[in-house]
This record gives sequence, structure tokens and C-alpha cells, in this order.
Amino acid sequence: MRGLPSPLVAPPPEDSPVRASPAEVDLVALLAADELSAFLRLSAAASCGPTLADVRGLARIAVDHLGRHERAVDHLAGLGVDVEEALRPWRAALDAFHRRMAPSTWGEVVVGAYVGDAVGPDVWAALAAGAPPATAALVRSVLGPRTPDAPVPDGSAPDDPVAAFAVPALARVVAADPQAPGRLSLWGRRLVGEALGQAQGVLTARPGLQELLEGPDTGPVVRAPVADTFARVTRAHVARMTRVGLTP
Amino acid sequence: MRGLPSPLVAPPPEDSPVRASPAEVDLVALLAADELSAFLRLSAAASCGPTLADVRGLARIAVDHLGRHERAVDHLAGLGVDVEEALRPWRAALDAFHRRMAPSTWGEVVVGAYVGDAVGPDVWAALAAGAPPATAALVRSVLGPRTPDAPVPDGSAPDDPVAAFAVPALARVVAADPQAPGRLSLWGRRLVGEALGQAQGVLTARPGLQELLEGPDTGPVVRAPVADTFARVTRAHVARMTRVGLTP
Repeated sequence: MRGLPSPLVAPPPEDSPVRASPAEVDLVALLAADELSAFLRLSAAASCGPTLADVRGLARIAVDHLGRHERAVDHLAGLGVDVEEALRPWRAALDAFHRRMAPSTWGEVVVGAYVGDAVGPDVWAALAAGAPPATAALVRSVLGPRTPDAPVPDGSAPDDPVAAFAVPALARVVAADPQAPGRLSLWGRRLVGEALGQAQGVLTARPGLQELLEGPDTGPVVRAPVADTFARVTRAHVARMTRVGLTP
Repeated sequence: MRGLPSPLVAPPPEDSPVRASPAEVDLVALLAADELSAFLRLSAAASCGPTLADVRGLARIAVDHLGRHERAVDHLAGLGVDVEEALRPWRAALDAFHRRMAPSTWGEVVVGAYVGDAVGPDVWAALAAGAPPATAALVRSVLGPRTPDAPVPDGSAPDDPVAAFAVPALARVVAADPQAPGRLSLWGRRLVGEALGQAQGVLTARPGLQELLEGPDTGPVVRAPVADTFARVTRAHVARMTRVGLTP
């Protein structure tokens, strides 16, 4: 994340009981912190839902994120990691991000849930592809069916419950306010731009994570796997925005 | 609730497809609204937890409330009730109550979760005792083991997960701030006083609910079952406050 001191977590001492590399711990801790942040953000935003169905729909999505958080945290604890310590820097950075990108309308809440459900997970899934099998499997199981190996044409996961909530919710917002699509399209572009900027900051602050994407640094050349990942995430974002009638 | 116009929900027309009395609908709708309010309030407050364990502990309690809300709503929908319509007045009244009683410290959040988890449910359980069997069974199943027929000596339910969270969380608050017990005792007294005042307002606004406690109104005499219920709720509250080292 921007402004993160590097390295935030010192490498474990020789006699560390932690049974994973620092990059694996960072990846799962980042995922766990992102899922907890999603729970807290979406459950707080649910109270702004214009109908009870909207409130409950977003609340259910929030609860799903808490379950994912708990699976990631259980995995970390099983590796001997101090969970509180491992999540602290990511929680602070995510909180700062979401304070900066706080939604001001229900439409922005819905777009945030919909876009945020995709951009971060697409990046974590790409990082997991370079991690040892146990960590890769955990990340995939936490994220569900959305993985870079199994993209679907419109960038959403099959039977995506977030899309099932967001598509009709956004249709109602747009029906009530013909100006909404323009503003929400702009909001979606801001969100994805900020999120990818944050992801870039994470990779710069944590060379171990960057190596999960592309192997060890071999010089100041353009590192294609990061660019490839960001391009793929951006294409999926464009497809998802288009699916809900917004301009990516 | 105070300031509620009465009646808020007109009696159903003769040909109403709703298969329950207005009082039963009110009782289950009030329960459903209270559980949803608890989810929204506690999940939003969880982000103030001083440790990750506190955040997760309160988040889990919030999620449990959402599950109870959904069971109550499913029951209403099964009776042919327009759920959105039935919950609307209660949601507005509960929101107003909780805005007035917004906690300003983590200790107040924990006391609110602990006291709020008991006072409302004790009143709903007492009302359910006068309802037809199907509604009574639903309310008991939503509330869990805490019923007026099965009190436990300290006023908490057996294996009460809220107490399991609140007791150590409050111990940490008190260890860090020796002034906390005095302020939190006062906060607990305010909460229970306001909650019982709200409950009294509900019974006044909804004679049908009051009849669940004591049968039809027969004149302006003191109606003992309401006073009995409030006295029992207050005794349970005193025991619960004492259990966490606060002065009731």
C-alpha cells in the first residue's frame, strides 16, 4: 500500500516456528485483512439500503466475506503465525484506502461491493498461482471459483452472488435517477484505478509478493507478469462494468 | 415505541391472505427488525475493536443476529405478510432509539451488545408466551434457549456466546482504565431504562401486543402482567450486570 514502510514484517528468525515463507504469510494475511475489511465496510453500508431487500442482500454478502476471513485466519494460525501481528499493517492500509474511497450514495455502495469483490481477489488469485501448493489451494478455496485459470467471459464467477445482488440493485438506482450511470461509471473508474495503484504499492513494498508473480528481480527491466496481471484484471473489470450498464 | 402513531399497521381487510393476527405479525416483525438492527449496529461497531480478536468476536455475534432476523422474516413471508411493510415502522423506531443511545467507547459497545442481547429478547419471549403455538414456537426458536420458562440463575442463557465474548472483553477494558466500571455501570442503567421505556411505548401503541401478555383490557387498573414482566427483565439485567462486575 502507498506509504507503507518496507519491510513491514521482518523476516522470521532462524528458529521461527512459522511454517511458511514471509511472502506466503503476507499473501494470506493481506487476503484475510481484505475480507475482514469487506465485512466491516459492507455491513456498515447495508444500513443505507433503500429497501429491506437491499439491506439484507448486502448484509448477506458481508457475512460471506467474514466467513472467508475466518478461513484465511484459521490457516495462518495453523501455520504458527501471530495473526494479530500479521494482519496489523494490512488492516491499517486498507482502512486508509477505504476512508479515501468512502461511498456517498447507495449506488456507490453497490458499485463498490461489485467492483471491490473482483479487483482485489483477481490480484490475490494471480499471486497465489506462484505460491507453494498448500497456500495456493487455501487462497483459491477462500476466494471461491474465481481464479485466473478459470475466467468466465464477462469477468464474473459462475453463479456470482454479488452480481446477482448488484445487477438488479443498480437497475433500480438507475431507474430512479437517469443521471446515475454517468456518476457511477466515473466512480467505478476511480475505484479500479485506486485499487490497482494500491496493488502496485503492495508489490513494491513487498518484493517477496512480487516474486510470486514473476520470480526473483533480475534488473530494472519492465516486468511483464505484473503488467499482464493488471491488464487481465482491467479487462475483467471492463466486462463487469459493461454487464451492469456502466461505462468502464 | 415513543412517538409511534397508533395503529401503525391497519388491521388486514376481511379478504386478507395473511394467516396470522395483527398482534402476531407485530410481534414477529418487531423481533425481525430488532435482530436486523442488532446486526447492523454490532457489525458497524466491531470496527472499533481494540484487537482483531475483539473485532472478530463482535462480528460473529452480529452475524448470529442476522441469522435470527432471516428466520423471523422467512416465517412472516410464509404467513403471507408483506415483510417490507411489516418491518418499516419498527425499523424506523429502533433506528431512532439506537441513534439516541450510540456508544462512544469500546466499553459502551460491549455493554450495549451484552445488555441489548438480553432486554429485548426477554420482553419478546414474554409476549410469545401469550401467542398461538406456531408463533410462540417461532419466537422461541429465533431467540434460542433464553425463555421466561427456562431462566438460569444469573439471567444469561446456558453457554451464552455473548457473555463468553463480553466478560473477557470488559475485563480488558477495566484493566486498562480503572474509571471504566463507574461509567459503564451508568451506561448499563441508561440502556435498560431506555429499553424498558421503549417496550412500554410499544405496548401502549399496540394494544394487541399488550393483550398477548395479559388478555383484553378490562379497565384503567394497574395491569400486573406487564409490571411482572418488567420486574423479571430488570432482575435478569441486575444479575447480568453483576456477573461482569458492573453496578446495576
